[in-house]
Order: sequence, then C-alpha cells, then structure tokens
Amino acid sequence: MIVVIKNDAPQEKVDELKQMLEGYGVTLNLSVGTHSTVIGLLGDTSAIDADLIAAQDIVEAVKRVQEPYKKANRKFHPENTVINIKPGVDIGGKSLAVIAGPCSVESEEQIIEVAKRVKAAGANFLRGGAFKPRTSPYSFQGLKAEGLELLKIARRETGLPIVTEIMSVEHLPLFEDVDIIQVGARNMQNFEMLKELGKIDKPILLKRGLANTIEELLMSAEYIMSGGNENVILCERGIRTFETYTRNTLDISAVPVLKRLSHLPVIVDPSHAGGLPWLVEPLTKAAIAVGADGVMIEVHNNPKKALSDGAQSLTPDQFDNVMKMVKKYAAIGDRTI
Amino acid sequence: MIVVIKNDAPQEKVDELKQMLEGYGVTLNLSVGTHSTVIGLLGDTSAIDADLIAAQDIVEAVKRVQEPYKKANRKFHPENTVINIKPGVDIGGKSLAVIAGPCSVESEEQIIEVAKRVKAAGANFLRGGAFKPRTSPYSFQGLKAEGLELLKIARRETGLPIVTEIMSVEHLPLFEDVDIIQVGARNMQNFEMLKELGKIDKPILLKRGLANTIEELLMSAEYIMSGGNENVILCERGIRTFETYTRNTLDISAVPVLKRLSHLPVIVDPSHAGGLPWLVEPLTKAAIAVGADGVMIEVHNNPKKALSDGAQSLTPDQFDNVMKMVKKYAAIGDRTI
Amino acid sequence: MIVVIKNDAPQEKVDELKQMLEGYGVTLNLSVGTHSTVIGLLGDTSAIDADLIAAQDIVEAVKRVQEPYKKANRKFHPENTVINIKPGVDIGGKSLAVIAGPCSVESEEQIIEVAKRVKAAGANFLRGGAFKPRTSPYSFQGLKAEGLELLKIARRETGLPIVTEIMSVEHLPLFEDVDIIQVGARNMQNFEMLKELGKIDKPILLKRGLANTIEELLMSAEYIMSGGNENVILCERGIRTFETYTRNTLDISAVPVLKRLSHLPVIVDPSHAGGLPWLVEPLTKAAIAVGADGVMIEVHNNPKKALSDGAQSLTPDQFDNVMKMVKKYAAIGDRTI
Amino acid sequence: MIVVIKNDAPQEKVDELKQMLEGYGVTLNLSVGTHSTVIGLLGDTSAIDADLIAAQDIVEAVKRVQEPYKKANRKFHPENTVINIKPGVDIGGKSLAVIAGPCSVESEEQIIEVAKRVKAAGANFLRGGAFKPRTSPYSFQGLKAEGLELLKIARRETGLPIVTEIMSVEHLPLFEDVDIIQVGARNMQNFEMLKELGKIDKPILLKRGLANTIEELLMSAEYIMSGGNENVILCERGIRTFETYTRNTLDISAVPVLKRLSHLPVIVDPSHAGGLPWLVEPLTKAAIAVGADGVMIEVHNNPKKALSDGAQSLTPDQFDNVMKMVKKYAAIGDRTI
Repeated sequence: MIVVIKNDAPQEKVDELKQMLEGYGVTLNLSVGTHSTVIGLLGDTSAIDADLIAAQDIVEAVKRVQEPYKKANRKFHPENTVINIKPGVDIGGKSLAVIAGPCSVESEEQIIEVAKRVKAAGANFLRGGAFKPRTSPYSFQGLKAEGLELLKIARRETGLPIVTEIMSVEHLPLFEDVDIIQVGARNMQNFEMLKELGKIDKPILLKRGLANTIEELLMSAEYIMSGGNENVILCERGIRTFETYTRNTLDISAVPVLKRLSHLPVIVDPSHAGGLPWLVEPLTKAAIAVGADGVMIEVHNNPKKALSDGAQSLTPDQFDNVMKMVKKYAAIGDRTI
Repeated sequence: MIVVIKNDAPQEKVDELKQMLEGYGVTLNLSVGTHSTVIGLLGDTSAIDADLIAAQDIVEAVKRVQEPYKKANRKFHPENTVINIKPGVDIGGKSLAVIAGPCSVESEEQIIEVAKRVKAAGANFLRGGAFKPRTSPYSFQGLKAEGLELLKIARRETGLPIVTEIMSVEHLPLFEDVDIIQVGARNMQNFEMLKELGKIDKPILLKRGLANTIEELLMSAEYIMSGGNENVILCERGIRTFETYTRNTLDISAVPVLKRLSHLPVIVDPSHAGGLPWLVEPLTKAAIAVGADGVMIEVHNNPKKALSDGAQSLTPDQFDNVMKMVKKYAAIGDRTI
Repeated sequence: MIVVIKNDAPQEKVDELKQMLEGYGVTLNLSVGTHSTVIGLLGDTSAIDADLIAAQDIVEAVKRVQEPYKKANRKFHPENTVINIKPGVDIGGKSLAVIAGPCSVESEEQIIEVAKRVKAAGANFLRGGAFKPRTSPYSFQGLKAEGLELLKIARRETGLPIVTEIMSVEHLPLFEDVDIIQVGARNMQNFEMLKELGKIDKPILLKRGLANTIEELLMSAEYIMSGGNENVILCERGIRTFETYTRNTLDISAVPVLKRLSHLPVIVDPSHAGGLPWLVEPLTKAAIAVGADGVMIEVHNNPKKALSDGAQSLTPDQFDNVMKMVKKYAAIGDRTI
Repeated sequence: MIVVIKNDAPQEKVDELKQMLEGYGVTLNLSVGTHSTVIGLLGDTSAIDADLIAAQDIVEAVKRVQEPYKKANRKFHPENTVINIKPGVDIGGKSLAVIAGPCSVESEEQIIEVAKRVKAAGANFLRGGAFKPRTSPYSFQGLKAEGLELLKIARRETGLPIVTEIMSVEHLPLFEDVDIIQVGARNMQNFEMLKELGKIDKPILLKRGLANTIEELLMSAEYIMSGGNENVILCERGIRTFETYTRNTLDISAVPVLKRLSHLPVIVDPSHAGGLPWLVEPLTKAAIAVGADGVMIEVHNNPKKALSDGAQSLTPDQFDNVMKMVKKYAAIGDRTI
C-alpha cells in the first residue's frame, strides 16, 4: 500500500500518520520529494482499512498494491485447486464439469427424466432449484424441502452428484446430503451466510453478483475460506450493463482473470448470462475455449411449461447438440468430461 | 401485457397459445394484421411469467404494459403513505426525516456523544450500525447485540428513534425494540429475509441494491408488503456505474420516479452514494430539492479513527453546517423537520 | 506517478527502467523495501504514457497521483472562470445561466415564438438545434444552415445569445456568428474537431459523453484549452447505466466534483438526462441546489408536433412554472439570473 | 409498433391520434378492452418517431416490435454478406479474417518488420494507426498522412491488405488507396462522417462505441448502408462497465446476437477489449469459438517502446503462439484463414 502525502502537510502531522501506520504492524518506507512525500507500507496490508487512511487530512491518495485476499490468492497457492466431489469426479484441473438440469425441480417425473437425458448426453452433474429466488413475490418459489428430496431421488437413479441453491442460512441443515451448495448472485454478499458456509466442508459454488467486481467475488470466496472451508468454485454468470438485448452481459474475460488471480476453479453459466436459449451453445463454446473449468446449463424436458426461466432452458434434444460441440472443444484443451 | 405472434404461426399453435393465456384468468383481445397478430391480455397480469410466454415458439415478443407490483403501486393507492414512528414523529408527507449517526456503533461514549450532537443540530432520527456488512472478512464486523443495546441507551438519552441494519433473518428477535429496521443494499433481494420482515409490523427502511433497477426495488418492497407489512421506506443510495471518482453514482432521478410510481416515502443516503465527506452537503441539498422525504447522513465524533467508513463521515461541526442548509431548502418546500 | 517494481526484478532491469523514466524529464525517488521497490516520479507527468510503463516486464503497477490535465485544473487556476458572452451576460461566478429553447429549429414562427416565451419567463440564452445528431438515418436531421439563420433572427428579436450544436468540423465557418458552440455528447471525443475549436476564441459548451468519465470530460476540455481557447463550459447531461426507466442517469455528483477539480463553469441538461418532461422540474431544482452554474432546458411551443425529442420538451406554460422554482432556489445561493 | 392508450382517454383524442398515426402510411389495428385500448401499427414503421407518439397526452406506452434498421437487417437479407477485399480475400462467410499489426505506425522499419512477421504467422490483413484518437492532447497523435504512406509500403512488401482508422471526414481523400477504412469506437455516432462513408464503396470496419447498444451499432451501419455503401464490417471491442480490472468488458454475446439480427460480418478486437496482453490469446479463442468472422490483434515488434497502447500489444513471438491456437479453433468450424 502506498500513501501519498499532501505537499503542505506539517511535519508533526506526518509523524502522527507514521505512528498510526506503524500501528498496523507494517514497515514504512519514506520517499521525500520536492512536490510530494510518498510512504510505502511493506508487509501484510490485507487488514488495513484504506478508506480510513484516506480520511486523514494530510493524505492526498492511498493506492493498494497488494490484493486484499489471501486464501483465494494464487500468489500464495500457485497450484490449481482441484475439488473432489466423489470418487473419480473432480472440479478443476483437467476435468471439465458439465452441470445440467432444470431451473426448478417441479416433480419427480420431471427431475428424473431430465437427469437421465443430461447424463446420457454427457453431463457429469445435475442441477435443480428447490429454493428459488424470484423477483416477484407472486412467482413460483420452488418446492423447497420436497425439491431437495426429489433431487436425491434423481441422484440415486443416475449417479449424478447434485448442485442446488441455498437462500437462507436457516435452511442449512436441509442441505447436509447435497453434493455442492450453490450461493446465488443475489446472495454473493450475504456475509452472514458466507460465514456459516465457511464452517462446513462441503463444496460451495459461489456465483458472482450482478454488479460485483472480480475482486469482490474473490473477497466473498475469502469469507468462506477464512472460516476454514477452502472448497470454493467460482461462477461467472453475467453482469449488469446498459445492454438490454441479452438479460446480462457475460463477462468472458473474468474467466482468465480469475484463473490468474486465484487458484480456485471457475465455471460459467451461459443460460443465465444470455437469458436466450439460442445463445447457450455459442456461449458454452466460448466458455470452454476461454479456459473455464466447466459450464452450468439449464435443461428442461418441456421449457414451454417450465415454472421458472423456461425462456432460457434448452430441451434435452438441444442439449444433446450442445454436448457434441462441448466434446470437440474439450478435446483441443485435453479436458476430460 | 401484449403478446406479438410471429408472421408465419400456424393457426393451431395460435389457438394453443390462446388457451394457455386464458388459463391465467385474463381476457384476450386479438388484433390480426397482414404482417403480425397481436394479443392483448386484459386483467391482472402481475402473476404472469412473461418469460414463459416468450419461450413459446410462435411468440415474437412480449411487452408488459402494467407494472408487476400492486401494493406498492400509486395507481391503487394514490395518497402518499405517511409512516408514524412515534407520537409526533412521521416519515413521509410534509415531514422531512434527517437520520444521522455513525456508520458503526463503537462504544457507549461515542454513540451518546454523536446522538446528542446530531439531535442538537436538528436530526430527528439516530442511525448506527451494530451488524456491519463488510467486503473483507478481515474488517471490523460490528459490536452486534451489544451495539443494539448501546443504541437503545442513546435513544433513552436523546429521545431519538433508532434505525439500524439487519443482516440475517436469524437476528430478527434482537431487533424487537428497534424503531426502524434497515435492509442494506446487499440484502435488497435476500427474499427469505424480506418475507420474514413482511410478517412483522415494524417500519422497514429498504435500500436500493447497487445494481438494481427502480422496478426491482419496488418488487422487493412488494415482497414485504404482500406479507402484510406496509410500513416500507425506500432509500436511494447510489448505483454502480463506470464512473469511479465517486464510490457510487447517486441516481437522483430515482426519487421523483419512485414518488410517481409508488406512494411510499423515499429517502436519500448522500454519504454512501458519494463516499466523500465534501459531497454530503451538495448531495443533501439536491436530495431535498428533488423532493426526497428525508436524508440519511453519517456523522462520527472522530472520523479519522472510525472503525468503518470514516472516509465519508462528517464531523459534528460539519453536520451543523449541513443542517443550516437543510433548513433553508426545507423551507422552500414547506417541509417540517 | 508511482511505479511499483516486481519483487524479483534484476538490478540491471531496474537501472534500465530508471534511465527510461529519467528520459521524461522527471526526478526519481527510490524507496527500496524488503518486498517491493517503489519509484516516485516527481515533476510534470502529464505527458507520460502510464500504459507504456506498465508494459515493462518488471513493473507490477503504475499509479497516477497527479491529474493528467493542466489548463482545466483548479490546482493551477484556483479562481472560478467566468466567461463573458456579451456585455452584462456571463456564464460562471454568481450568474445562473438558463438556456432554453427547442430541440430543433423548425421554422421562423416556431423559434421566434419559443424565444419570446422563454425570455419572458426569465431565460437568458436561447438554444436550438440546426444540425441534429439522430440515431436513425431516417429521422429528421435538422434545417442545417437555414436553421442557423433562423436562430439569428430569433436573437435579433429577443436579444438572447444563441447556443447551437456543431456536428462536423467542416461546418465551422457557418458558426462564426453564433454566441456559444455546443459539442454534443457523441462528439465529446471527436478529437479532430476539438483541436479546431481550440483555435478559435468562441465559448464552447462541451457535453459529457454517455460513457465518459469525469476525467475524460476534463481531458476533452484540455484538448480545446491546450489549443488556446480557454472559454469552455462543461455540461453534465446524464450517463448510460443499467437503469432504463429514465433515458440516462443524471450524475448529479459530477457537478460538485467538476467544480472541485476544475475552475470551468458547469451546467446541467435535465431534459436529455431524464428524457421525460415531468422530470425536468425536479432535476432543475436539484441541479441548482447542488451548485450548477446553469441549466439547459428544452421548450417547444407544441411538443406533440416537435420534429425531434418532443417527448421530453416542456410547453412554454410548463417552463413558466419551472422558472418560478428556479428563482426561489437561485435566491438561496445568491445567484443572479 | 404498438401504442397503448390510457384508460380514460376521450374518444375525440383517440380519433385525433388515429389520424396522426395513419399519416405515417401504416395500417391501424384497434383492440379495445375494458381496461385499455391497444393500437397496432402495421407496415414500415422504421421512420416513425416513437418518442413523439409517446409525447401525446393519452398515450400510456409505445412499444416497438420491428427493428428500426432495414438494410442491415437479416430479415430482409437472410444470406450472410461476404465482402471481397481483393481477389481471393474475403471477410465473412467461411473466411476467418486475422487483422494484425501495431497500434500506431511509427516508422518504415517498424511497420515492415511487423507486417512480415504477422504475415508469416498467418495473418491475412495488416492494421496500423496513422491518425490516432488519444484521450490526452499531450500524447502521440500518429504520423498522419506519412503513416498512411508507410502502410502502403508495407502492403507492397507483403501483399497484405491494409486497415486503418479515419478520424475526420476532411481526411477522406487521403484514404482512397486504403483497403478497409476503420471507424473507431469514439466516432461510431459521428453521423456526418458516416454519411460521407455511405457515398463511397470502400469496405468500412465499424467499431462499436463504448456505451452503445447492439441496436445503435446496427443503426450506425444503417447510416452507411442507406447512403449506398453496403460493405460494412461490424466490430465488437468491449463496452464500458463497472468492472475496472480489464480496460473494457468484451461483450462476447454481441457476436451471435449481431449475426442473428444482421447479415453483416462481425469481428472481435481482443486487444482493446481487455487491454492486457495475456488476455489476447484466451479472448481470441473465445471469439472464434463463439462464431466471429475474424479478430483484430495488436502486434508490435517492441511493445515496451511502442508510442501508443504498448501495454496491450503482443510481441511477434507471442502472436505466433496465438496463431497456432487460432488454426486449431478455426478447424473445428471449417473456417479458412
């Protein structure tokens, strides 16, 4: 961290500031020029509140040099994290995760039919929403606990590990037998929930918030990891911009950026990012080409009657076609599905 | 709601669609042209999933005409809502709420000193954070339950009603004796929490999320109101844009827009919107001039040592000056503080 | 400017970099720590390409401390710039400019009628578009040279100085007798045009681009000023964000920020920012309260038949009402209209 | 286009509106319900000003159904446009364009060296800036006319067609012997220039503006095409969002969206989008996978001494590696380079 002092700062104020900064346990490095004085802070600055330093009268500017995250930082963990989900099934490394299934679990028949179809096409995980975050209180809110039970039945039938979203820390006991717990975009900064998820050891799929920066996503991962749970999978699912043709704007660059800054696996959700079924295939191809560790795709046996997000779901037949392309692109990068 | 049918849709598909639409309990109005067919849906369309209709093959486009919120809608409640907080103290109508206090409650001395100073300057509410949402897990997280107790002591000393933020539905019992419960920007779409807040009758100050539209803010209010709690105060606190000089971009237009679309009171938080102490005064003046029902301002007895957000807090002396201007601007609009 | 060197940089590479930096005519200030080396650049860094320095292998980060603009910078010109338009009529300082008129000049009758009405209401400048930037090639493109002539006739009739937009540097000779030349948002970074406008001495009203930062607006002003024309008026007219209820999002904070960073006058265009006639009054009040040096308002004698932007224009009667409020708010700040 | 009438509109006002709408030469289709009346406009609505209709008192809302562009619209031109640049060299169709070269032309040696290297690696076009749009007036502004001459020398040496940017309509005569004229992001809505470019028949590479929607990009193409020049190549180069880690946010979804809405070829500029050299390879792979007709990549023989944008340029060796991947990805889609 670098602190730039105003030109006209009286020496005693500078001395006070230096004392304050030394209180953080860092070493100071002073560079006095004719027009400005610069103080370099050396050591671990991740717990220092840059805004507070900027609030001091004599400070012109504060610039961070180090990233504020540690556990999620590739600098301190150069190897890729590979998360083992069940024997022979990993996320990260050479594995390419294909997580597919309906937006909402609607019935036993539906979830089993979809699970069988996506497995046959080559998916290695089943997704399905039991608790559904909906913008309107008048929309279908999910089958809740019953939905979780139906997912487990589908898992038993197909062997696919299941991924499903948690919406409140109170529901955590219900998720004990789930394979991967998803934190949705709207809860990416629900810090109380992140803290609780840091106390368990189940893999957490953490979706980037609509208006959250890459650094904030890593700080939310840091919340979970600093609690002790290092099994975090990051997910890019589109950010909110001025463009309205697509539901959100898939920030494809975030994938290589996240993989450079962090050792955690990164997957992409092309269904939510675009919000249009015909965008799923090209965005999936782009996600694999750019280096993602997996994709998460909505598939519904009858999108026209889906109780949520039908407009963006693929039919099982369309998913079959997408998987053919997935396999071609995976082959270039020697990825295994 | 209007549904535009593709040119080449076969009649039987159109008939199927009509049946589906009639299933929502609305009346249909068909307009057949040479190039396209338009179906108007008349009646209550707030529970209809527009995306699902758009997912049908023969549908070219779906356009909403009605707003998807009802309880929060001024059309169905033309009078301004005025929320009584305690005898003689309202939010909304002719009253101008000035909610002031520190970002975080830090000690009994601090909160009492700030409370006395802001009261003397003319504030009519005390704010203070006990549970603090922080981007970094390594930052100060608030005094929690103890902070709530200190706020109550400050209320006893000054008579000012207290406003404080809830971060998890599990903490709700602790907030029983708080005057106004604040939902922060990051929890605006924590729907499980909104549902719980809909079951009580305490006033809720609902902050707009960083990347949430005006309509989504109203839909979150609708979550609380549809549960039975109509005491919702909306708060504009800046949205995230490409401009980085200010922390966020205060969407000042949102105030008159919200007041046109809804009957609920609307306040502005100039401290979080700008993130810079010297912006608080001009933004406060703008907020009152544009028609807000109040402002929420961070004041700290020693911003340079604040445990959170010191960089944007005013000193009590600076707040005195802001209040002088507040009174002048309030006078133009016949607002009482 | 501060250059942070990577931990493992070999000494010879650091020496090379130092030589390169000294080549810019600045003094270097080295601060060597155990984990990183920081080089401070002292002197005029406005011509240094920070990106080029960042491209060097051993550079971890480059941070600007100084602003990259000089002529527009309040640090080097602490007094407010007041631009004299004609005897007794200024922009900046204690004067409050009210620039009103139709989006497009449509006919002699129209522009004279509007000019008389806005003058009677208290406006001190007449606006009107002769060359119109339209998103669609099929929309009305303005009366061009004829429109400029009609504006001059309206000026003769009312005495109001005229403000009108230039769209191409080739048209510059036609603008010789115009009082203030407007550069529209879409041309804010039409650098070839800015350079030409720097060679004349006519006041330039420079509108902020839809996606341009405050710093970029000041850099565009710098283009004009570095050519020799220091008569630049800045205009905030809304930026593009994810919110679609309003046409753009008025960045009200930009006004006090621009006034702090620069000595140039700053005005606000509430008509284009909101795009809705009922937003003009509240946004005008906010603009004056926040400290703008003026406002620019669209007024049309028959908005429903306007050839462009009718949807956001006020009628002369509505403008009369807005001016009543303008006068009240101007009085608080001792502004003269 | 659909016009929704307010509930309480008097019949005479509705009749007036119908007359006004019929004046546009469209057929009306009335749908009268109990709560609202909807008028459908059938025929060519591209020249109708939707805002003007929305300005009428009795109008609740106006919704476009048709796209406002015609020449650029795939509906009226279902086949892909393939632009022939020289015998055997096309943009569009099965061809994959690889346009490479330095940000700025700096010297004869530089441009020839880079041209030879990129040709050897497999590029089929040479790019190089002669007129440079720079945010700061104090930055290098390009070699101008001399730069164009150097590009032609490099073309003679290598046979590669040249692509270079125009910044002002006044310079058009200088571009007569250029193969493809580029319109930069900042000039995407410089309508006067677009009109002039519509009068020639040279291919135009039109870059999307930083804050321009997909529809606006197509409307700018329409400006050129409606003038008679249908040789337009669209280019996605990143949009401005709140994320600051990358210079801009590459809107990868824009590629399949543009290809669905329009028949024009679409290329991607990964160098400007990311602003970081290590992002060029993954973004190039994503661009080809998503279906772009080409990529535009900055290559400099000595990025550390580049006079502009060195920070994002690849070295020729790095470009060699990117081209190896380009060929693998092109093979999947049967694209020829």
